Amino acid sequence: MGVLTRREERLLRLLRQRKHRETEGLFVAEGIRAVEDLLASELSIDFVAAASSAGDTPRGRSLIHALLDQNVTLREVSEVELRTLADTESPQGILAVGSVPEGGLDRIRVEREPAVVLVVDAVQDPGNLGTLARTAEALGAAGLVCLPGTVDAWNPKTVRAAMGATFRLPVVESGWNELAPWLRENGFQVLASGTGGEAVGEPAPARTALVVGNEGAGVGDETRARAHRVVGIPLRGRAESLNVAAAGAILMHQLLR
Amino acid sequence: MGVLTRREERLLRLLRQRKHRETEGLFVAEGIRAVEDLLASELSIDFVAAASSAGDTPRGRSLIHALLDQNVTLREVSEVELRTLADTESPQGILAVGSVPEGGLDRIRVEREPAVVLVVDAVQDPGNLGTLARTAEALGAAGLVCLPGTVDAWNPKTVRAAMGATFRLPVVESGWNELAPWLRENGFQVLASGTGGEAVGEPAPARTALVVGNEGAGVGDETRARAHRVVGIPLRGRAESLNVAAAGAILMHQLLR
Repeated sequence: MGVLTRREERLLRLLRQRKHRETEGLFVAEGIRAVEDLLASELSIDFVAAASSAGDTPRGRSLIHALLDQNVTLREVSEVELRTLADTESPQGILAVGSVPEGGLDRIRVEREPAVVLVVDAVQDPGNLGTLARTAEALGAAGLVCLPGTVDAWNPKTVRAAMGATFRLPVVESGWNELAPWLRENGFQVLASGTGGEAVGEPAPARTALVVGNEGAGVGDETRARAHRVVGIPLRGRAESLNVAAAGAILMHQLLR
Repeated sequence: MGVLTRREERLLRLLRQRKHRETEGLFVAEGIRAVEDLLASELSIDFVAAASSAGDTPRGRSLIHALLDQNVTLREVSEVELRTLADTESPQGILAVGSVPEGGLDRIRVEREPAVVLVVDAVQDPGNLGTLARTAEALGAAGLVCLPGTVDAWNPKTVRAAMGATFRLPVVESGWNELAPWLRENGFQVLASGTGGEAVGEPAPARTALVVGNEGAGVGDETRARAHRVVGIPLRGRAESLNVAAAGAILMHQLLR
């Protein structure tokens, strides 16, 4: 275990900003569970910074051993230093810098049917995006596509809410110009979710791109123009809409049953 | 429009804490949308504090007029004062103190079937509880019951995530000793949600108490002992669980279709 280099410390501070995450192709995962999930995934780890408290529990100690076994670069930091570097209030003594996976839509495997690709159109809240990713991966979606205007999938708050899902599920940034031909070639129907949309119905399409939209405005005009249908969930209360992560969960569950 | 009294200012500070919300029977709603929703509900408003920025938009001005029309006590505060009193970073120039509705399980109306009462067992995150309330109201649930150990439904963050749902849906705090006989008398089946639970199946029961549990531990031992069945959502990914608000949305939708 060496000490954190100046370059690494500077990098950790830069990675708080999306533009630096994008230019470096790196992101930060905080906490024992997140670092475990990252280590178990196919993403590569640049380095890990750990304080002594990471070794306070058997689970933390076994994670440190697993990182050493796999020759991950491990840096020792003080508790105070870790807290100033971390986004979370309780990083549990550990954080890792991981590589954002490279590649585009071709990373999404669509052999298994029913296949659902979740497309996110300008969702703003990182917790909502992370929860959508978590639900998509858990229910067996094939991938997650973020359209322009969507919060960064590698934002620390998104990573946290995703509970490891963004390390396992292909997450791709794309615009409609690239996405539309890919969906067509692969036989996907585009369903946009929106207030007043019709029920998904049965049987669900074999291959669906389900688009969920911004928390306030819903899906954008280009999405509406690209969609084969607008689908929704009948509401019986006086609420105008569901939370986007709740709506996405219900619709993905209907499509993937 | 008068100025905020010392008593009112002190009250607003006290209401940040659950114990004072409970002893006073009051809560705070922040922002134009929340105050609109509160005014449109059957809950009574103790007073409203507004800064001049609340009148910056036509919607804000029309809310101020509606409050004056209905003889709500309106207090003028400075922008700075409002921000120090508010929980949100952007309270949009307005907050209201509302009365927590009185009464117990008898507030829940169960004439319409299918009827679902959402029971929350020790959910910790106010955003999750608020989103659950929002989804429950939107899908037509009959009420929300918070078991001991659950975050306060009148916490400002819960109120915000609920988007007005907690002003319209009966929200009741209860323990199993009181809840179990009420559910039995009213012919409710108790379904606890949990990892590895069986699918809800069709047709869904006509009257269901759906219990969702703590973010980490799931439903508690007493809930498991009280439940007729444990239900779940089959997961195809490598995630161990769904977010509780996502799982609750899927299960309520299955029960209320």
